[in-house]
Amino acid sequence: MKIHILTIGDELLIGQVIDTNSARMAQFLLEIGAQVTGKTTVGDNLDDMLDALDSATRKADAVLITGGLGPTKDDITKKALAKFYGTGFVFHQDTLERLNRILEKLNRPMTDALRDQCFVPLNATVLTNKMGSAPGMWFEENGKVVVSMPGVPFEMEYLMQYEVLPRLQRRFNNLPTAHRTLLTAGEGESMIAEYLKDFEDSLPGYVKLAYLPAIGRVRLRLTVSDADEGFVKKTLEEKFREMEGLLPPELIVGYDEDTLESAIGETLRKHGLTLSTAESCTGGYLAHLITSVSGSSDYFLGSIVSYANEVKMKQLGVGEDTLKNHGAVSEETVREMVAGAIRLLKTDIAIATSGIAGPTGGTPEKPVGTIWLAVGNKDRIETKKLQLGKDRLRNIQYTAIQGLNLLRLFLRAD
Amino acid sequence: MKIHILTIGDELLIGQVIDTNSARMAQFLLEIGAQVTGKTTVGDNLDDMLDALDSATRKADAVLITGGLGPTKDDITKKALAKFYGTGFVFHQDTLERLNRILEKLNRPMTDALRDQCFVPLNATVLTNKMGSAPGMWFEENGKVVVSMPGVPFEMEYLMQYEVLPRLQRRFNNLPTAHRTLLTAGEGESMIAEYLKDFEDSLPGYVKLAYLPAIGRVRLRLTVSDADEGFVKKTLEEKFREMEGLLPPELIVGYDEDTLESAIGETLRKHGLTLSTAESCTGGYLAHLITSVSGSSDYFLGSIVSYANEVKMKQLGVGEDTLKNHGAVSEETVREMVAGAIRLLKTDIAIATSGIAGPTGGTPEKPVGTIWLAVGNKDRIETKKLQLGKDRLRNIQYTAIQGLNLLRLFLRAD
Repeated sequence: MKIHILTIGDELLIGQVIDTNSARMAQFLLEIGAQVTGKTTVGDNLDDMLDALDSATRKADAVLITGGLGPTKDDITKKALAKFYGTGFVFHQDTLERLNRILEKLNRPMTDALRDQCFVPLNATVLTNKMGSAPGMWFEENGKVVVSMPGVPFEMEYLMQYEVLPRLQRRFNNLPTAHRTLLTAGEGESMIAEYLKDFEDSLPGYVKLAYLPAIGRVRLRLTVSDADEGFVKKTLEEKFREMEGLLPPELIVGYDEDTLESAIGETLRKHGLTLSTAESCTGGYLAHLITSVSGSSDYFLGSIVSYANEVKMKQLGVGEDTLKNHGAVSEETVREMVAGAIRLLKTDIAIATSGIAGPTGGTPEKPVGTIWLAVGNKDRIETKKLQLGKDRLRNIQYTAIQGLNLLRLFLRAD
Repeated sequence: MKIHILTIGDELLIGQVIDTNSARMAQFLLEIGAQVTGKTTVGDNLDDMLDALDSATRKADAVLITGGLGPTKDDITKKALAKFYGTGFVFHQDTLERLNRILEKLNRPMTDALRDQCFVPLNATVLTNKMGSAPGMWFEENGKVVVSMPGVPFEMEYLMQYEVLPRLQRRFNNLPTAHRTLLTAGEGESMIAEYLKDFEDSLPGYVKLAYLPAIGRVRLRLTVSDADEGFVKKTLEEKFREMEGLLPPELIVGYDEDTLESAIGETLRKHGLTLSTAESCTGGYLAHLITSVSGSSDYFLGSIVSYANEVKMKQLGVGEDTLKNHGAVSEETVREMVAGAIRLLKTDIAIATSGIAGPTGGTPEKPVGTIWLAVGNKDRIETKKLQLGKDRLRNIQYTAIQGLNLLRLFLRAD
């Protein structure tokens, strides 16, 4: 079943609101094996909307619309749908009664704007929206389905789960689809592609591989669609294992919903190890990534953000000579920062960062983007030097990810 | 100038990635007075893309494409563009040399996938992408502009700012347009709208007010477009001053490119004050925001991320009794954390956070989202209690922003 998502609203076009609805809808649809083949966004404009409806119904089996409903939106979506189907409006008594019950509870008065919500196009099947005032609507003409939902995320989610998905499944019996994701770190997209070149060339049409790169990481998503559900499951497992086997094991971080932070957290928890960070150039971002994982307090005890050399010396016990002879951005300094964090925060392991994040502050010997990383315990410390660009925020993010990956490899070797 | 945004990628259709690019692009385009009239997303599918290109170039003056570029096989934008223009490919030597320089730095080998990136359609003008490997491309045929950019956000942002926007302005000499931005914090969008209701209603057609809300902040952008450049400048200054005068002064953080972090940095620098943070629930995110400002080392000395109570006591000197009698999430604890950070890191001012970020870990007396903030110097400490929801990341971000705003108001009162 091919689905086209149509989102309505000026706020989406001027960049005031980020469209999270269509991503959420796509996730729902994936679960029933429906394929989203396209997405269109138009403003609160009748002609643009008619135009979008026309081309979407041509391309897809079903068009799911969000937005353009509700009391402040002057119901552009309903007008467009009535015009699209060349029909008029009917007053929907059940919706009025539902609204009256809600208003009683809140003891609010009925307004004209709310009463207008009870009018729906003649050919609409009303989908009861228990989460809000604007009703959902289901249309079916010449073999094509069109669904209209409010743009309010939790209203849309309610209607998708309890009304739209079950009807779509009844209406179209789609190809079973399943997918799995492999998370890698340590190599770029192009290098991963080299490892998987032949594998990718050998994939049959019903298996699809997608690369989803992020700073310092690449997600590989394998999707299988076929009429035979058992075959889908079996093929996915086989191909996924085959793909995983083609990559150097040290690149593999985790699966599906895993992140670098959560995967490291699992390993630390499993081995009962505690972690701290000593951060200069990352300025706390490394600790933020680690603590963005719920339950991280089980293994993460704290961090010393030592932006000033004073703090490096007084708190982390970095030697004055070390700073004088090698500088704050040096292998020696990050080594002493790791040792200091372990001593001070009483953890098994620590990560340290020191570098010139930029865009200014470089020297001929140590240009902007020169960064030192260290990870270690009381017995062993691994270090790594990075030479990055001039983009401050990117340097901070990339360094933090590299720090986490260095920790992952350290734990692997341990 | 009418713009259509076209985003490419299966990951956008299966909901694995939320499309933030098009919102960011729309914001950029608003600044040069260009109007985004529509947005389309298609998967990594040649026919769908040709179809989208065709209808987009019909509707708009310029089509801006992101995604579908980059070193892997599911990237098809270049193929589609060559087919759309009925042209072949040419090898772009400068791009190869640029890639070689990057690879040297990282000492990584050249790969076939990377070399493929140097091929561009014959009629493309290459836009140098200093942030990544895939080059941007500018096309101009029968009066329509088509631009292709990588989907990686910071690569797109770089190309938009330094290559695409200036070219678009030259190519379509739109009406002289100027804009100024006012940054506010401490009130929501709807409250700000109340203050500015009459002002907004009174604005003539050539003056536009846009609300750009972010967590804990609202940006107000005033844009003026008119044939007469002098009139534009004059009107903008007048209206901007009028708008500013209508808002309570304590809401106003800064202007144009200012951020809460940079504005606070300026104030601290001006008064020669130093800052540190003592973070529990924000886990280093507050320090990260402060140090995301270039030059922040002038006033920010460091942070103690005291995730464990041990660290709160041993490092920050929070009393064992305080933790026993009031708990880690309490006004007493954050007060002692501020005093501890000032003492330990030898700063004039400190910010402290302690709370239950969630989604789990709440109690009947202190449910998830209960958070205490404190800001102070050796003489005076201000505290604030927040009661937030269950979304961990949002709670961390909102708390950090509120902490910065509390500091801003503290400095204002001082």
